[in-house]
Amino acid sequence: MSSAKIQTAVVGATGYAGFELTRILLRHPRLKPPMLLTREGSDNTATLNDVYPQISGNGSYPLEPFSWEALKARGVDVLFLSTPHEVSRSWVPEADRRGIRVVDLSGAWRLHGEDHRAVYGFHDDDPAAAERLMAKSVYGLPELHGGKLAKAGIVANPGCYATSVILGLAPLLQSHLVDVDHGIVCDSKSGVSGAGKQPTQKTHFVEVADNLSAYAVFAHRHTGEILEQLGLDDAQLIFTPHLLPIPRGILSTLYVRLLQPTTAERVRECFRNFYADSSFVRVFAPGRLPQIQYSVNTNYCDIGFVLAKDGRRLIVVSCLDNLLKGAAGQAVQNMNLMFGLAEQEGLQ
Amino acid sequence: MSSAKIQTAVVGATGYAGFELTRILLRHPRLKPPMLLTREGSDNTATLNDVYPQISGNGSYPLEPFSWEALKARGVDVLFLSTPHEVSRSWVPEADRRGIRVVDLSGAWRLHGEDHRAVYGFHDDDPAAAERLMAKSVYGLPELHGGKLAKAGIVANPGCYATSVILGLAPLLQSHLVDVDHGIVCDSKSGVSGAGKQPTQKTHFVEVADNLSAYAVFAHRHTGEILEQLGLDDAQLIFTPHLLPIPRGILSTLYVRLLQPTTAERVRECFRNFYADSSFVRVFAPGRLPQIQYSVNTNYCDIGFVLAKDGRRLIVVSCLDNLLKGAAGQAVQNMNLMFGLAEQEGLQ
Amino acid sequence: MSSAKIQTAVVGATGYAGFELTRILLRHPRLKPPMLLTREGSDNTATLNDVYPQISGNGSYPLEPFSWEALKARGVDVLFLSTPHEVSRSWVPEADRRGIRVVDLSGAWRLHGEDHRAVYGFHDDDPAAAERLMAKSVYGLPELHGGKLAKAGIVANPGCYATSVILGLAPLLQSHLVDVDHGIVCDSKSGVSGAGKQPTQKTHFVEVADNLSAYAVFAHRHTGEILEQLGLDDAQLIFTPHLLPIPRGILSTLYVRLLQPTTAERVRECFRNFYADSSFVRVFAPGRLPQIQYSVNTNYCDIGFVLAKDGRRLIVVSCLDNLLKGAAGQAVQNMNLMFGLAEQEGLQ
Amino acid sequence: MSSAKIQTAVVGATGYAGFELTRILLRHPRLKPPMLLTREGSDNTATLNDVYPQISGNGSYPLEPFSWEALKARGVDVLFLSTPHEVSRSWVPEADRRGIRVVDLSGAWRLHGEDHRAVYGFHDDDPAAAERLMAKSVYGLPELHGGKLAKAGIVANPGCYATSVILGLAPLLQSHLVDVDHGIVCDSKSGVSGAGKQPTQKTHFVEVADNLSAYAVFAHRHTGEILEQLGLDDAQLIFTPHLLPIPRGILSTLYVRLLQPTTAERVRECFRNFYADSSFVRVFAPGRLPQIQYSVNTNYCDIGFVLAKDGRRLIVVSCLDNLLKGAAGQAVQNMNLMFGLAEQEGLQ
Repeated sequence: MSSAKIQTAVVGATGYAGFELTRILLRHPRLKPPMLLTREGSDNTATLNDVYPQISGNGSYPLEPFSWEALKARGVDVLFLSTPHEVSRSWVPEADRRGIRVVDLSGAWRLHGEDHRAVYGFHDDDPAAAERLMAKSVYGLPELHGGKLAKAGIVANPGCYATSVILGLAPLLQSHLVDVDHGIVCDSKSGVSGAGKQPTQKTHFVEVADNLSAYAVFAHRHTGEILEQLGLDDAQLIFTPHLLPIPRGILSTLYVRLLQPTTAERVRECFRNFYADSSFVRVFAPGRLPQIQYSVNTNYCDIGFVLAKDGRRLIVVSCLDNLLKGAAGQAVQNMNLMFGLAEQEGLQ
Repeated sequence: MSSAKIQTAVVGATGYAGFELTRILLRHPRLKPPMLLTREGSDNTATLNDVYPQISGNGSYPLEPFSWEALKARGVDVLFLSTPHEVSRSWVPEADRRGIRVVDLSGAWRLHGEDHRAVYGFHDDDPAAAERLMAKSVYGLPELHGGKLAKAGIVANPGCYATSVILGLAPLLQSHLVDVDHGIVCDSKSGVSGAGKQPTQKTHFVEVADNLSAYAVFAHRHTGEILEQLGLDDAQLIFTPHLLPIPRGILSTLYVRLLQPTTAERVRECFRNFYADSSFVRVFAPGRLPQIQYSVNTNYCDIGFVLAKDGRRLIVVSCLDNLLKGAAGQAVQNMNLMFGLAEQEGLQ
Repeated sequence: MSSAKIQTAVVGATGYAGFELTRILLRHPRLKPPMLLTREGSDNTATLNDVYPQISGNGSYPLEPFSWEALKARGVDVLFLSTPHEVSRSWVPEADRRGIRVVDLSGAWRLHGEDHRAVYGFHDDDPAAAERLMAKSVYGLPELHGGKLAKAGIVANPGCYATSVILGLAPLLQSHLVDVDHGIVCDSKSGVSGAGKQPTQKTHFVEVADNLSAYAVFAHRHTGEILEQLGLDDAQLIFTPHLLPIPRGILSTLYVRLLQPTTAERVRECFRNFYADSSFVRVFAPGRLPQIQYSVNTNYCDIGFVLAKDGRRLIVVSCLDNLLKGAAGQAVQNMNLMFGLAEQEGLQ
Repeated sequence: MSSAKIQTAVVGATGYAGFELTRILLRHPRLKPPMLLTREGSDNTATLNDVYPQISGNGSYPLEPFSWEALKARGVDVLFLSTPHEVSRSWVPEADRRGIRVVDLSGAWRLHGEDHRAVYGFHDDDPAAAERLMAKSVYGLPELHGGKLAKAGIVANPGCYATSVILGLAPLLQSHLVDVDHGIVCDSKSGVSGAGKQPTQKTHFVEVADNLSAYAVFAHRHTGEILEQLGLDDAQLIFTPHLLPIPRGILSTLYVRLLQPTTAERVRECFRNFYADSSFVRVFAPGRLPQIQYSVNTNYCDIGFVLAKDGRRLIVVSCLDNLLKGAAGQAVQNMNLMFGLAEQEGLQ
C-alpha cells in the first residue's frame, strides 16, 4: 500500500449511521478529509455542525450538494452511500460506469436471490445491467468475505441485525455442528437508532420508553440476507426483531440444536478458530455472556454461549453496536480492506 | 346535585392528554359513557382501541366524526376540547352560542392580557366577541378559582408547567412573604408527553434518551399564564423549561427570596392553610422533598421546600403528572366543580 | 358470599410487589383495611408512607411488628406473604397449624416435584409435614386452577415469568396442537422490579440503563414451575430470561412447532375458547401483537401470535406487568376466588 | 519535554471514574502502560477485564495490590487516586513524603477554607502537616489554574458539578459583569454515575428511572469548592443538584443578574476571551444552547447562554460529561500540563 491518502465522500452524513461514519473518517489516519454531500430534497443544512454540535471543537464541516462532477474534481476514491435503498439502487450503476468504488450502507445490493427486487420493490431501468452489477457486488462482512474486498467495486454493507445473527451462527454452520433441519431461532433486540433519524410514531420517545415490542414477525427484510449468507432456506431459520428502549445496540439470542452431543470446549474452539484472524469479534469464555453495554461505542461483535447439559441445545448470544459494527464501523472496516489497509485502521 | 348522569364529549381522544381524559371519564361514576369525536383531517381511526389497545378488555370505544348536530342529539352537557389552540379558538364561540359548556385543554382561552392574540398568533373573525368570551372564561385552577367554576361556561384548563409553578408560589405570594422585586427563578423539567403525540425530531427517542436540554428560554408561552395568575410582571419571574428523558411528570424548582427572615414552620403553615380545603395538593413536611415518581399516575400536585439557614432564601419543589394534574385530571376536577360534584369524584 | 368484609394481612409491604399488593387491598371494596406487618430484622419503618410518599393523601398506613398473636387478635382471614422464599417456607406450616389461609408470593410452595428442595436449598425441620403441606398447596394461576381456590388453604402465587409463559402456551398444549418433542423456545424479557428492591450491582441504574443482558441461561428457577404446570420435561422447553432497562413489564416471545399445518383462525379459537371465562387474559386479533406498554399498570396478560405461511411455525407473544398479573394483582385475583368474590373485584 | 514515556499508576480503576481514567491512559501516546492497583478490602478482582469485559480485545489488564514499594520499583511518576476522600486524605501525605506526584479525584484536597475538615469529617493525624500540604495543593481546573500545574505535586481534581458551575460563571465574574450581591442560582442536573458504583437504594434502577429528584439542597459538598474558586460567600450563590435518569452527563442552568444592561455580543466576547486558549471549552453562539448529548463521551465543557431583552437577566447553560471533563478526562488534562505535554494529548 502506498502512503498516499485516500479521498472519501459520504452521502447522508446527517443520518445516524452517516454521522458515525463521518466521525470515523475524520479521525482515520490514512484518509484525506471526507467530502460531505447532500442529496437534493434531503437535509440541506450548511454544515454538519449545525445538526450535530457535538462534532465541533476542531473545525467546521461544510456540506455540499452532490454531483458526479464534484466527485471527479476531488478525485474521490471511494463513495459511501448512507442513503435510502431506492437511492442507492439508482446511483450505484452510475458510480460503476464512472469507475468510482462504492460502499453502500443500504439494503439495495445485498441480496443475490431471484426475488430481491420484490423484497425491496425495485423497478430497475435496466434489469439486466442491475443483475450484472449484483453479480459483482460483494457482501461486506469481512469475517466471511474479507478476501474478496481488495478487488471489489461495489460493497454491500450488511444490515445490523444480519451482522449480529450471521456472526453468531456462521462458525457453527461451517463446522457442520448444527441440525439445520430442526430449525434455528434468532430472537433479536435492537436500539432505536436502527430505525433511522426520520421521526415517526414508532420512534416517538413516549411510544418506545418503558416498552418492548416485537415487529415484522416472519417478515423482516434482513431475513433474506441472513439466509443467503448462511446457505439456509426459509424453513430452517426464524428471525424475530424487537424494539428496545435504548438508543443503540443489538443483542441476538440464537437457539441452535446440535447434530451430536458436544462439549463447551469444542464449541469454543469452533468460534475461536473461525475468528482467529478477525480483529473485531470477541469470543467470550464459556459461562460468560456478552451484554449490549460491552460493545456499544466499539466496532466489536461479542459472542458468548451456553450449552445445555445434554450437549445438544446451544444458546449463542451475540452483541454489537448497530451504528458501528452494524453499519458505519463495518463500512470503514470494509474500506480498509478494499484499499489494502489493516482492518483496524481508524477503528480503535 | 341531582343524581342524573352527565353527558360528556371529547374531541382529541387519541392524543396523550385526550386519552388520559377518556380513561378517567370512562370510569367516572357520575357520567354517561363519553362521546368520542374526531375532527376532519385529524386521526380518523374507527375506535380508540385501535390506537390504544391497552384500553381494551371491557368493551370497544368507537370514534365518530364531530358535528354540532351530533352533540345536540346526544344532549351533551359538557364538551372537552383536547385540540390545537387555533381549533379551540374558533370552536369555543360556537359552543357558547349553542349553550354548551366547555373545558378547553389548549392555551386558547387562558390569557386575559392585551397581547394574548399575539402570543398565540390568533386572528379572530370577531375580535370584540372574542374579548367578551375571554372575559367570561375561567382559568381552571380549582385551588385558585374553584368558586367560579359552578357557573362557568368556558373553562380554560391550565398549562402543565403553569400548574406546577403557580401552585408552588401562590400561597407565598398571597401571604406577602416574597420579595417579588428580587425576582423569582422557576427552573422546570418535564417529561416528553407534554410535547404531544405528533412525532418530531425533538421527540425522537434517540434525541431525548440520555439527554437533557433547556428550551424556549425567556420565550415559553406558559410564562404569560404564570405571570397573570400570580399578579407579577415580566421582570419579576424567570421561567425555564427543560426536556427530561422520561414519558411523563414535571418537577419545578422554585427559587424565592423572602421579605423577612422566616421559619420553616411558618412556611409550612402558609402552604397548609392555603391548601386546607384542596384535595389534590400534598404539602410535604420540611426536610422531605417530592419526586416525580410520587405524583405520576395521580392527580396530586406535591409541594415541598427547604429554607436556608438565613431564613430568607427558600427553595420550593413542586411535582405533578403533566397528563393528569397538568391536563386531563385537572380537566375532570374542573368538570366536577362545574356540575356540583365532589372534586375527587372519579379521580382516585 | 356474605357481605362481611375480609380481614387481610401483608408481610413485606415495603417491597415492590408488597407495595403494589397493599395499594390494591386498600382500595378493594370488599376488604377491611389490611394489617401491614414487618419482620424482625427487616424494614422497620414506622409507616408505609415513609417509604412510599406516593401513597399519602388519604391517610397514614402504620406498620406493626409481626406476631401470630396479633393476627389472631385482629381475626385475620388471609395472610399475604411477600417475603423471601426461606421465610415463607418456615412460616406457612405455622399458619396452617393456626388455620390461617395464606397467599404466598415467594417460590417456596410452587414446585411439587421431588427435587424442589434442592432447587431452593430448603432444609425443612419436618420434611414429611412439608410434603403433606405441599400436596395441599394450590398453584395460584386462576386460569388453570381457579376451581381449586375456593377451598385452598395455601396458595402458591406463580412467578412472574412463569405466568407469562404458561398463559401463552397452556391453551395450545391442552389442545394437542404442539409438537412438544420438537422443543419450545421461550425468550423472555423483564423489567428490573422483578429483581426486587434490594440494591445490588445488577440493579444499579448505570449497569441496567442502555443495556440488555441474558442471565440464568438453562438455570432459572422459574423453569421448574413452567415445566410442571405445562406437563413437559426438561428437554421439551428452553426458557431464557433477559433484563430490560425498564422498571416493570414482561414480554415473552414463544416459539412453537405445531403438529399439523393449521390456520391462524384455528389458533385464535384455541386461545379464545381456553380463556372464554377469564377476565384477565386479552387475546389479540391475528396480525396485532401485544407490547409491554399495553399491559403495564393493569392485571391483564395480553396474548398475540403470528403463524408462518407454512401453518406450522407459530410465534406467540405474551405480555404482562410483573408486579400485577405477575405478582400482586394475581395474588388478589386468587384471594377473590378463595373467598367467593368475583375475580375482578378491586382489580379494575 | 523529553520523549521519555511517563509511568502512571491508578488506585480505584474498577470504579466508574477510575475505569474511564484507565481507558484514557491506555490509549495515551505519551505514557507507559499504567499500573492498576487495588486497596486491601476493596475490589480484589484479578483483572480489569473481569469487571469490564468491554475493555477486552487488545489484551488483559491485571490488577495488583497497592504498596508504596511497588510504586517505587516501577518508578511511578504520577499516582492517580480514584478513592474515597478519607483514603485520599491519609495517603497523599505519604506520597508527598516519597516525592510522588498525585492527581487526586476525591474531595480530600480541594477546599482551602478553615472549615474543610468539618465538611468532610477529617481527623488528620498531623493537622499542621495537612495544612502545609493543603497550601501546596493546586485545584486542578486547568482553565483557571493551568499555570500552576507544571510544578504541582498535589493536584486536587475538581468535583463534576463544581466544574460545570465554575466554568459557566468564572468569565462573567472575572469581568465584573455580575451583580453578585443579588445572588446567583445554580440549578444542576446530573446522571447517576456521579453517585459512584456502590449500589444503594438511591441508585437502584427502579428508584431512578422515570424520575427526577432534587437532593442535598443547601447542603451539597461541592458548594464549598464553587464558592472558593469563584471568590463568593455563602449568601451569594445557591447550588441545587438533581438526579437525572441517565447514566452520565451534567447540565447546569445558571441564573445571573448583570450589573449593567449588556448585549449578547458582549457576553459572548467575555466567554470567548476567557477561553481563547482553552482546548476543552466550547462557547456556543447566542441562541444556541448546549445539551447533555453533545458533550457526553468527550472532554468538552459546553457553554451557551440567553440574555433577556432587558439585557440584565442572563441564563447560562453549561454541559459536560461528569466522568470525563468532570473527573477522568480532566485528571488527564491536568497530568498533561504537569508534565509539559499539550493539554489535548490522549483526549481526542
